[in-house]
Amino acid sequence: MAKPKIGFIGLGIMGKPMSKHLLDAGYELVVHDLVQAAVDEVVAAGAEKGVSPQDVAERSTVIITMLPDSPDVQAVALGENGLIEGVSEGDIHIDMSTIAPGVAIEVAEALGAKGVGCLDAPVSGGDVGAINATLSIMVGGEQALFDEMMPIFAKMGKTITLCGPNGAGQTVKACNQIQVALNIIGMSEAFVLGAKAGVDPAIIYDVLSGGYAQSRVHDARGPRMIKGDFAPGFKARFHFKDLNIIMKTGNDYGVPLPVTSLVHELFATMMAQGRGELDHSGIMTVLEDMAGIKARTQKE
Amino acid sequence: MAKPKIGFIGLGIMGKPMSKHLLDAGYELVVHDLVQAAVDEVVAAGAEKGVSPQDVAERSTVIITMLPDSPDVQAVALGENGLIEGVSEGDIHIDMSTIAPGVAIEVAEALGAKGVGCLDAPVSGGDVGAINATLSIMVGGEQALFDEMMPIFAKMGKTITLCGPNGAGQTVKACNQIQVALNIIGMSEAFVLGAKAGVDPAIIYDVLSGGYAQSRVHDARGPRMIKGDFAPGFKARFHFKDLNIIMKTGNDYGVPLPVTSLVHELFATMMAQGRGELDHSGIMTVLEDMAGIKARTQKE
Repeated sequence: MAKPKIGFIGLGIMGKPMSKHLLDAGYELVVHDLVQAAVDEVVAAGAEKGVSPQDVAERSTVIITMLPDSPDVQAVALGENGLIEGVSEGDIHIDMSTIAPGVAIEVAEALGAKGVGCLDAPVSGGDVGAINATLSIMVGGEQALFDEMMPIFAKMGKTITLCGPNGAGQTVKACNQIQVALNIIGMSEAFVLGAKAGVDPAIIYDVLSGGYAQSRVHDARGPRMIKGDFAPGFKARFHFKDLNIIMKTGNDYGVPLPVTSLVHELFATMMAQGRGELDHSGIMTVLEDMAGIKARTQKE
Repeated sequence: MAKPKIGFIGLGIMGKPMSKHLLDAGYELVVHDLVQAAVDEVVAAGAEKGVSPQDVAERSTVIITMLPDSPDVQAVALGENGLIEGVSEGDIHIDMSTIAPGVAIEVAEALGAKGVGCLDAPVSGGDVGAINATLSIMVGGEQALFDEMMPIFAKMGKTITLCGPNGAGQTVKACNQIQVALNIIGMSEAFVLGAKAGVDPAIIYDVLSGGYAQSRVHDARGPRMIKGDFAPGFKARFHFKDLNIIMKTGNDYGVPLPVTSLVHELFATMMAQGRGELDHSGIMTVLEDMAGIKARTQKE
């Protein structure tokens, strides 16, 4: 089978390296973004320039979107000059943005009515995973379409899993973000309590590393948190966005999420305090301020 | 230095195997418990029987307590016929119970006034760790006393850490129990949300295992939770007890713990519903009932 021509919309911190991997693999690309400099850079690397989502859809058979949030995907896919105005029967849309599962289903249904096959395929692994093509990709949609698109996914990610029907990829991503957020909050409340009770957070970090309280976040972020280093990493405002998606999803499916909802409010506090550009582990600063103490190690 | 004669008070699921390790290591033991059968068993293994904490203190130089909760330690150490009525200057008290840091400090000060050296030394690792002598032991107290008692700790545990002054061992244990509880709650809300949105919890478990959402609890308990297997393990009522200690500690030191306090209320719900004998991961059943769904995998 000849390589399909790929449209790629959304050339941000994630989409730019992802699109370049596809160019490197020999795919023809037509790209679009609202930021002209990003478009110019990927065009310089060999892509064609599309003037709108509709234009991109008209000139490609597989269209990938990598956008900030649900309304962006709705607008690009279903809005004026959107994909829906340019697609042909048999085209394929892969949305790799992290958005609400309900919106993923809505888009899949609307484009599906035009004969377009749809996959939701959010990722985890961050900009480092995008640059190194080691993203985890969580896919929702039909098995045959998933199999057909695997060569494309394989150029951008490493662990690629079909999670269920349309929306299932987004649902699993939401689950991922719940666990990560709660693991971070657990560390934050533990460090702050321990520090104010007079224990060096470095001791807490060390003792808990070897035991039942361990987590990947504990290993990766603990040593920085106890030094007060909250350079991103994954910016808190993006995790807040994901928590908004999660709360909407809980509401859509009738699932009370008591603890996640409180964590959402703590991230809302962090946003209100202008700390959205910190790493998401910077949520500890909110708890530090509540307790009136900094959880900083004295060790070197 | 000759081996000190050890008093051991509290021969429950943890204390019984711990005391037997000390007997096996050649220590003379005098033991006490309110449950006569437990005393008889350890006496049959070679220990002497003490009739009260006071009696145990009079007949030993190192006294270990392994009791359910703060009031038990207060009563045994400072109450009528308590340790305080039997100790001599130069004796050593090691409390291995999990209790409030504030109570550990209170006991250390009261016995310290009689010339008794005190360590708080709560453990993690559960009954399996007690039986295999692989407990993690988190110690609060003076370095010299910690070093002196290391041969005794080494018969019961593996990772043995001095965390700071009196109370610091209990504080680090509290931090441990915060992180474990929040990691479990994160898994619970994720599985319940995912299941009601139509994704097999086994997929959620698998996908999240390899990534940033991973935790020791996820690895150890996830496969059972998604089958609805909540056999303990660590009973929920013990984690609830620890959460009560944590909330009291937050109050003592002036540390708001917004998320842990909500988790405390969810465990209180679990207790009110008569589910305290389940494994602590059974907290997921509370969230399942709230959402009106069971998060069960269909996979084999």
